[in-house]
Amino acid sequence: MADKIELLRTLMRAKGWDAVVITGSDPHSSEYPAERWKQVEWLSGFTGEAGDLVVTLDHAGLWTDTRYFIQAEQQLAGTGIVLHKMRVPEQVPIPAWLQEQFGSEGLIAVDGLSMGTDFVRELPGTVISVPDLLGRFWEDRPEVPQTPIFTVDPGESRSGKFAWLRAFLHGHNCDGILLTALDEIAWTLNVRASDIEYNPLVISYLLVTSQGVSWYVLKQEVEDPDTESTFSILAADGVQLLPYADIDYLPSEFPGRLFVDSATLNYQLFDSLRSAGVELVEGTSPVGLRKAVKNPVEIAGMREAHLRDGLAMERFLYWLEKSVEGGREISEWDAAVRLGQLRADQPGYRGDSFQTISAYGPGAALPHYITPHEYAPVLREGGLYLCDSGGQYDCGTTDITRTVPLGRISALEREDYTLVLKGHIDLAMAVFPEGTPGCRLDVLAREPLWKSRRNFGHGTGHGVGWFLGVHEGPQDIRQNLNPTPLQAGMINSDEPGIYREGRYGVRHENLLLCVEAGESSFGRWLAFEPLTLCHFETGALELPLLDRAEIAWLNDYHERVYRSLSPRLPDEIAGWLRDKTRPIG
Amino acid sequence: MADKIELLRTLMRAKGWDAVVITGSDPHSSEYPAERWKQVEWLSGFTGEAGDLVVTLDHAGLWTDTRYFIQAEQQLAGTGIVLHKMRVPEQVPIPAWLQEQFGSEGLIAVDGLSMGTDFVRELPGTVISVPDLLGRFWEDRPEVPQTPIFTVDPGESRSGKFAWLRAFLHGHNCDGILLTALDEIAWTLNVRASDIEYNPLVISYLLVTSQGVSWYVLKQEVEDPDTESTFSILAADGVQLLPYADIDYLPSEFPGRLFVDSATLNYQLFDSLRSAGVELVEGTSPVGLRKAVKNPVEIAGMREAHLRDGLAMERFLYWLEKSVEGGREISEWDAAVRLGQLRADQPGYRGDSFQTISAYGPGAALPHYITPHEYAPVLREGGLYLCDSGGQYDCGTTDITRTVPLGRISALEREDYTLVLKGHIDLAMAVFPEGTPGCRLDVLAREPLWKSRRNFGHGTGHGVGWFLGVHEGPQDIRQNLNPTPLQAGMINSDEPGIYREGRYGVRHENLLLCVEAGESSFGRWLAFEPLTLCHFETGALELPLLDRAEIAWLNDYHERVYRSLSPRLPDEIAGWLRDKTRPIG
Repeated sequence: MADKIELLRTLMRAKGWDAVVITGSDPHSSEYPAERWKQVEWLSGFTGEAGDLVVTLDHAGLWTDTRYFIQAEQQLAGTGIVLHKMRVPEQVPIPAWLQEQFGSEGLIAVDGLSMGTDFVRELPGTVISVPDLLGRFWEDRPEVPQTPIFTVDPGESRSGKFAWLRAFLHGHNCDGILLTALDEIAWTLNVRASDIEYNPLVISYLLVTSQGVSWYVLKQEVEDPDTESTFSILAADGVQLLPYADIDYLPSEFPGRLFVDSATLNYQLFDSLRSAGVELVEGTSPVGLRKAVKNPVEIAGMREAHLRDGLAMERFLYWLEKSVEGGREISEWDAAVRLGQLRADQPGYRGDSFQTISAYGPGAALPHYITPHEYAPVLREGGLYLCDSGGQYDCGTTDITRTVPLGRISALEREDYTLVLKGHIDLAMAVFPEGTPGCRLDVLAREPLWKSRRNFGHGTGHGVGWFLGVHEGPQDIRQNLNPTPLQAGMINSDEPGIYREGRYGVRHENLLLCVEAGESSFGRWLAFEPLTLCHFETGALELPLLDRAEIAWLNDYHERVYRSLSPRLPDEIAGWLRDKTRPIG
Repeated sequence: MADKIELLRTLMRAKGWDAVVITGSDPHSSEYPAERWKQVEWLSGFTGEAGDLVVTLDHAGLWTDTRYFIQAEQQLAGTGIVLHKMRVPEQVPIPAWLQEQFGSEGLIAVDGLSMGTDFVRELPGTVISVPDLLGRFWEDRPEVPQTPIFTVDPGESRSGKFAWLRAFLHGHNCDGILLTALDEIAWTLNVRASDIEYNPLVISYLLVTSQGVSWYVLKQEVEDPDTESTFSILAADGVQLLPYADIDYLPSEFPGRLFVDSATLNYQLFDSLRSAGVELVEGTSPVGLRKAVKNPVEIAGMREAHLRDGLAMERFLYWLEKSVEGGREISEWDAAVRLGQLRADQPGYRGDSFQTISAYGPGAALPHYITPHEYAPVLREGGLYLCDSGGQYDCGTTDITRTVPLGRISALEREDYTLVLKGHIDLAMAVFPEGTPGCRLDVLAREPLWKSRRNFGHGTGHGVGWFLGVHEGPQDIRQNLNPTPLQAGMINSDEPGIYREGRYGVRHENLLLCVEAGESSFGRWLAFEPLTLCHFETGALELPLLDRAEIAWLNDYHERVYRSLSPRLPDEIAGWLRDKTRPIG
């Protein structure tokens, strides 16, 4: 790593730059970038999902948050790169740090292509955007990925979506909207691909104007019938297909007022548009919120996806229990592989929705544990095994966590298991008035833990896409005061946990569909309906910690799990599931 | 009213003003202004606590919120003044309305003296500040009130507070801080008076600089030993006493950087300071947060105040029950008077902390009901009586609501009574990590109501001062996403309710002290301790709606109420209270 940084410094000296800032993002502000844009990893060796680098002539630093401190310390050892801790009280974010170093006089170079406009705007001093800055050193740099593109039918035509966007443009007195977030583009065009791991997206830009639609997408080099068919379908719907790189011509060609979302628009493109004199109207893209509210076809698809996923999960849990009881040597990695195979057996499976967390004992105490391929810990009788995983199906996306007692567990493990489930159920049972943001409900999942002075350091719930990203906004259920109200049709996870460092972790996660729950003289009401279908371990419960309503919820849920899944399971597993889902209390 | 508005319009025509904006505030942005500044009431006849007027040449409008719609419609009838509704989805606030009328070209006159700087800043067009604008028409306008000023000893010397403010100035690189909020001034100087109804405040300004302290306060015309003694004590502590009106000289005399809080600084003074070239540093005054965190002496005082208040309340509730049972004709007004007398019998009583809401049946459905002096409804057997009241004592401030069943109540009334108490208890039982803002806990008081599609349209909890305003910030417990964390030593109300229009209202309110609740491997914890001492009516409860923990909380609370109050009550009332506080469930 050190030699790469020295190469960079040679360039910095030649150009007179005081600092170079490098993020782990791509030109579309994606949560998961393709290999080509894993610049922080290439330069530093750090593989965490969140990390930004700053290199000056005498310092190299990696900025990351609490989740990745241990990993960063291990991976940066010997590189000379210093860890800068974020989400801690004494944090000094990159803009403040640069300000400390160079005041407002610094000359800061960035690769504006792989950085959001809002991020760059916060940097002090003079910012110079150098597209593909690292490209001059990175010899075997991966290309922009190109995978087959196919269409989906989520119950709403792309023409209808174009019309809706045009109404938005009309209302905002704009001539066009440039969509830059990949999930927003996939949603608008009803297309999917596999350009990004775990995310069925196509790397591209989309321009919708009052007259037409232009899609800036790589011309597929590999002949592929799906892609060809997709292109003809889109062309028939009036979509003009342009090479991905042609986005560079947009600034000089676009006449009029262009709506852009500076949260996902990369700085390079923003800067070109601005310099070319395009009149930019900045705001939040309307696609995010619209996409978060699932339509009836998407909801039906999500139900079907969760049925398939539940079948894979129950087969997995059955296999796991029998294997461990039978003394078979299974590692965390083996378990993850087995689960992946069981999902792949389901119809319409399109890959996992994120990297499976398969963790026995201490590993599970890290909410973002990465199961090692080699020398993975072996599951044994006694203690807790945690598995957080999800699938992409052609009809929807899943995300589920189950914590499994392997034989006997301690009194504290039982208590933690029960209290986390109590929190999970209390949130799932919530009824709330229209207009309520998720942050106001977050405490429902926490108060049962808080009462015994326990807590967890991550959010309780994130939005989930329809056969799209497993994390999506704009709503969530967490401690941050996000004002976006929950709406019927939104899907969020419900995943409280307790983590005991060096010992074990407990997390229980279902996806919840937000549904209408009637009207009274006090207004209109919303509630949640679990989509996930998989049993919890009643044998691990400390029953006196649950109240009647919570036990009733669990019994109802288990009855639904059994009725939904058992007809599609082999008799032996169905019988086992009957036992697992018997009413308690 | 119409003639006053026409007088104003004559002036407007002469001056060429397009609009005059008049608020119900005073030069200190007080929640309750003195009579002199009840300008909206004088001009429009509207007596609600929140209302702003805009007069143009062809329109006169009153802007107020949901709480006052009915009252405003009644009081404005025949005046020609149009009601503009706020806190409704279609609201058009004053700045937007003025923008619609005059664009950015309007000439808007305001009395900048009775308007906060932040408020004026939002107005479009050219703003002209005319101090005492209404003074030229308002012949019998009340003077600035002058009541005896006395000192208090809240366990922290004013010299200590000056030193703390100077450390703040040092940290913010300022030469002085101008305090404009009356409760912040009273807190800093350890003084009280009765200039404003229900609020033991002195109308004044306070300047603390690195060298000295200047108090701009009316020279008392009435010779008064308390005031004289206060003035000598303050002078001995180095406080320079200046006439209230001398604040006008500050802009030309102040050298250096002055810290001001534009949320409470009036626009007239802000404008003079700015025009005189004083370097203003705007921010939130540090006094608000510091004042909200009570010290041990203040906490002990609040406990004593609540003991006294509890004695008055229990005597009142005993009298009420016996009177109604005995068939005595008691009106809402009579009950309020009786309660006031019982409070006045307590040592150290300094008046009520707000106007008592004494409401039987339909009146109680209005959260801000004003009990009429004449023809007040008479209490009868059957139904619910609601009483929301509080006292100012020399050792603290109280605020309590009890809802009392008078004889038989309906099944719905029982359910509402119980669910509101359930919400009250669930919030009171909360345990939460340090750093938690009240808005994240608000749902605890609401979810029990929400589950049966009931709700209430006001906040759950407001801060309460120590022998100061019964409403204070910066923290609260409500639906608005106020990020201020709760801290040990803060005092908040806990007052959920259910209101059935035209029928009845239920509200249960205790004050809760935020206290430390230990440390665990997950961090440091806070919880609540009720300060209020007064029983709830267990006879009105629908027991199956409460869980074991809630019943245990109520039994513990009732035992504390009985033990604390009974030794100081006559035998007959103590015996009655023993019955009222017997354990249930």
